[in-house]
Amino acid sequence: MTTTKGEKPGEALEETLDPLDWGEFRGLAHRMLDRIIDLQEDIRSDPAWRPVPPAIHERFFSGPPRAGQGAEGAYEDFLETVLPYPTGTLHPRFWGWAGGTGSPLAMMAELLGAGMNMLPGNFNDAGARVELQLVNWMKEALGFPASGSGVLTSGGSVANLVGLVVGRDACSGFDVSEVGVQESADRLVMYASSEVHSSVYKAAKLMGLGKTGVRIVPVDDDFRMRTELLEEMISKDRLAGLRPFAITGTAGTINTGSVDDLDRIADIAEREGLWFHVDGAFGAMAGLSPETAGRVNGMERADSLAFDFHKWMYAPYEAGCVLIRDPEAHRHSFTVSASYLKPLSRGPGSWVDAADKRGPQLSRGFKALKVWMSLKEQGFDKFGRLVAQNVRQAMYLGGLIDASANVQRKAPVSLNVVAFRYEVPGADPEALDDLNRELLMRIQERGIAIPSSTVLNGQFVLRVCICNHRSRREDFDALVEALETIGREIHGESLT
Amino acid sequence: MTTTKGEKPGEALEETLDPLDWGEFRGLAHRMLDRIIDLQEDIRSDPAWRPVPPAIHERFFSGPPRAGQGAEGAYEDFLETVLPYPTGTLHPRFWGWAGGTGSPLAMMAELLGAGMNMLPGNFNDAGARVELQLVNWMKEALGFPASGSGVLTSGGSVANLVGLVVGRDACSGFDVSEVGVQESADRLVMYASSEVHSSVYKAAKLMGLGKTGVRIVPVDDDFRMRTELLEEMISKDRLAGLRPFAITGTAGTINTGSVDDLDRIADIAEREGLWFHVDGAFGAMAGLSPETAGRVNGMERADSLAFDFHKWMYAPYEAGCVLIRDPEAHRHSFTVSASYLKPLSRGPGSWVDAADKRGPQLSRGFKALKVWMSLKEQGFDKFGRLVAQNVRQAMYLGGLIDASANVQRKAPVSLNVVAFRYEVPGADPEALDDLNRELLMRIQERGIAIPSSTVLNGQFVLRVCICNHRSRREDFDALVEALETIGREIHGESLT
Repeated sequence: MTTTKGEKPGEALEETLDPLDWGEFRGLAHRMLDRIIDLQEDIRSDPAWRPVPPAIHERFFSGPPRAGQGAEGAYEDFLETVLPYPTGTLHPRFWGWAGGTGSPLAMMAELLGAGMNMLPGNFNDAGARVELQLVNWMKEALGFPASGSGVLTSGGSVANLVGLVVGRDACSGFDVSEVGVQESADRLVMYASSEVHSSVYKAAKLMGLGKTGVRIVPVDDDFRMRTELLEEMISKDRLAGLRPFAITGTAGTINTGSVDDLDRIADIAEREGLWFHVDGAFGAMAGLSPETAGRVNGMERADSLAFDFHKWMYAPYEAGCVLIRDPEAHRHSFTVSASYLKPLSRGPGSWVDAADKRGPQLSRGFKALKVWMSLKEQGFDKFGRLVAQNVRQAMYLGGLIDASANVQRKAPVSLNVVAFRYEVPGADPEALDDLNRELLMRIQERGIAIPSSTVLNGQFVLRVCICNHRSRREDFDALVEALETIGREIHGESLT
Repeated sequence: MTTTKGEKPGEALEETLDPLDWGEFRGLAHRMLDRIIDLQEDIRSDPAWRPVPPAIHERFFSGPPRAGQGAEGAYEDFLETVLPYPTGTLHPRFWGWAGGTGSPLAMMAELLGAGMNMLPGNFNDAGARVELQLVNWMKEALGFPASGSGVLTSGGSVANLVGLVVGRDACSGFDVSEVGVQESADRLVMYASSEVHSSVYKAAKLMGLGKTGVRIVPVDDDFRMRTELLEEMISKDRLAGLRPFAITGTAGTINTGSVDDLDRIADIAEREGLWFHVDGAFGAMAGLSPETAGRVNGMERADSLAFDFHKWMYAPYEAGCVLIRDPEAHRHSFTVSASYLKPLSRGPGSWVDAADKRGPQLSRGFKALKVWMSLKEQGFDKFGRLVAQNVRQAMYLGGLIDASANVQRKAPVSLNVVAFRYEVPGADPEALDDLNRELLMRIQERGIAIPSSTVLNGQFVLRVCICNHRSRREDFDALVEALETIGREIHGESLT
């Protein structure tokens, strides 16, 4: 609490959230910093995951605190109820979903960004420039034209949404963003493979097209879009009075890491006058290494390219990005005029190419800083090497599995994903699904590793997606050993 | 770089983003922490804003770094090109747009959250529980029913989008999220006042309704929605074959802080079977203080209520929230099924009420932690007192302006916003707009304060929106003094 010059006696003093004693706060802050660095430094000896005990779970159901307990008290609660129960993404053996790992310098950048409380993208400050530079770097690194535009997003889901909204507005043949999709007599539809990420369906719902606005193209045995069927579907749909506007190709499907034939899809989109969107949530990063770039050929031809920094660029959550080939189309979809946002010629309000004209957000956090500082720290080449390292690790794991007694691979290793399961010859299919479900949960619960699961060709399978700069080959050895041991353990139980 | 057990000779070693020398990294991290605490502790003696010099600006146009320069080098670049050029939101005299201030403990929470690399909301970890508890606290604090649901968003724009999407799907009379808005023969429309935030237009564009899907209700002299005209418009629109589905009421307009008659709008929405959305980006926080809660009466009747933590709850960017009365409707709009997200009964994948079924994001950062820790630190009552303090400061500033020689107030002070301008009797209207534009820019450029601007009744006006826990009355004294002095200075120049 601070007194204010000119306060009349008896008048209430002005309060603030700043500490009364900065020295005391500084001491606490340094302890916090040491504790969180300890976590990162020692992560290899921690379990990959541990459950939240019931007594801790309970504590999250207490009502709103009317009075404060001070910074030390809040930190105590954090230490007791939060710190021991992470999602597990930091761990060298976290390979669940498509989760990234974070990194120590990027963590510090989050501190610096929050400390400056930067409101980047819309104002004349360093924040808008850091974002602009990062987007420019990504265009160059991924072979996108320098004339394109881009914007940082919360992640791949919103990056897909932005790309598809711009595509809808640019390729529907009328001004959708002015008059709405109802103005079209013909139903608007877009295409994606059956392996496309769920966020594309979510985008369709949000965009007013409905889930059925996504036309699903079957995949081949390698889980890649059957482009000959795509062509057939487009023709038939046009004859049936539908109005196609976009195709989403995937660079790195979530289930198996398969990559659609992006060059072929680009050809089809070009010929048909459709928007070519690429969901490269993690797979786009294959473009950073000469060793793997060939696997995502054609990606650079996208009209919009969505990807995440918090997956295969190892940034802490959250940070995604979308690049758009046509900057005018990009702005058209997101620009709304407002008297309180009209740029001036000087001062903080004089930034002209405001980020709010390129995405759904107006206020936004300084997501760019952690990526920008990490790239300056490590360089793009290092990120490329780490991506290639993860691909080699996936191949290594695939080899271990192929050489193992009871674990079988269930899809080709085309990038950084390996799908597999424990097999028992002649076993009932449902019992085998149950066995593998139990196998996955025991591996997680015992803190050994965090794979996740999916369903391929009707079978429950485990999958590993390696977006992890801490993993070593020994970690995959440990996984396969656990799969065999625990698989036999469960199989033994089911026989007794 | 670390070696891996079992590496064959000549094989490449595995690389990582972790530091080679943790002790060295720790030293750097502690220096970073001290520097950013210095910034916060000394902010009152800094200028509110400073321009980015051309030589610094240039540096943001260099290409992608192929090789890294190390953590120290990245930090050097941060110190030279980023730290000196913030948006200015930390400053005691930042009152631009509706920007919040951040706070020291919340900054530390961002470090801790990034350090854990929590992936909250969808997994069985502490992160999902912190979010759940925060949403529950907000429901109780703002008088929303405990049975409602909610989700954290990037900010108010996406919170408005989520609320309106759920409203579209719930009140259009057919399953929009399945079949799309084109299935309706009648055009879907929603209502908002002419003072509504631009994000509502942006939401309409995204949602496939088009900008013209927002029907604009005129405001009265106090900038509040004319509800008698709203009723007329709804009747006429129905007769004309449009299909109304929602009304947005605003608690705290961006231009003047006016609050629509939310109780009256709730009555109309109820009678007409329309969704009642409230944009309470900053104004909702008036509900936290008994001194100001009466000003947002009726807010608690909303079907969906959008607000920000990073505005009037002073959290660092970014963190917003939306509360939804009907949890089933909420989930219906955002649920998409995916085999790789199917919950298991135990392990990290066993969280059932996943946040991705309540908003556009799947992966997401740990935004909740900074707010949760700040509320534990300070208590809700303190936040209520700070909100009331800002309202009293707005009234104080209004009084100073009313007593000043040449500055005139241009709207009532209904919350924490004061709109005003320098007047010169008999001056040409355009010249007066120019004078005030110049006045605003000089106040910003000289680092005195950061008000922003808007247009009211065709006049360019300055505005102050106080979401700042560091402001003191002396800061408003300084502003009014600067307005008078610099206003006279510019007027003098224009006469010579």
